[in-house]
Amino acid sequence: AGTPALVPLCASCHGEQGISASPIIPDLAGQQQGYLDNALHDYKANQRQGGSAAMMNGIAAHLSDADIAALSAYYAALKRN
Amino acid sequence: AGTPALVPLCASCHGEQGISASPIIPDLAGQQQGYLDNALHDYKANQRQGGSAAMMNGIAAHLSDADIAALSAYYAALKRN
Repeated sequence: AGTPALVPLCASCHGEQGISASPIIPDLAGQQQGYLDNALHDYKANQRQGGSAAMMNGIAAHLSDADIAALSAYYAALKRN
Repeated sequence: AGTPALVPLCASCHGEQGISASPIIPDLAGQQQGYLDNALHDYKANQRQGGSAAMMNGIAAHLSDADIAALSAYYAALKRN
C-alpha cells in the first residue's frame, strides 16, 4: 500500500521508522494495529487525555477514517529493529 | 534488577513478554521508558482518558513510584522479537 502521505507529519515526533528519538514520545513501529486505530479515533473525538493528547487531538481532527486506517496499518507493519 | 513482582499482573493483558495477544491492547516491550513512566504516573493521578484508562487508573492507584520506575525500566528493556 506504500507509505501514506501523512507519515512525514507523524515522523516529526515519532521518528523516521516509527522509533521515537525522545524517551517520552512513544514508538509506533510494530505496535498493535487496533490500538493505534482506536487511539487515533479517540484523539479525533477528543476522548483521550494525558501526555500529548492536546496536540494529538489537533492533528487527528484533520484525519479521515481512511487516513487513520492507512496510518495504523503502516506503523503496525513497520519492523522494530 | 530481575523481574518486578507485579509483572504477572501486567502480563495478564499486555502478554508474557510485553507483546499483547489483543490488537487493541498495546505492546509494552521495547517501548520508550519515559513514555511508560509518564503514562503510569498519569494513570495513577487519573490524568489519562480513552482506551482502558478506567481500568488502568484502578491498577496504577496501587503502584508506588518505585513500582512504576521498575515496571517502566523492565518493559522498555524487553527485546521485541
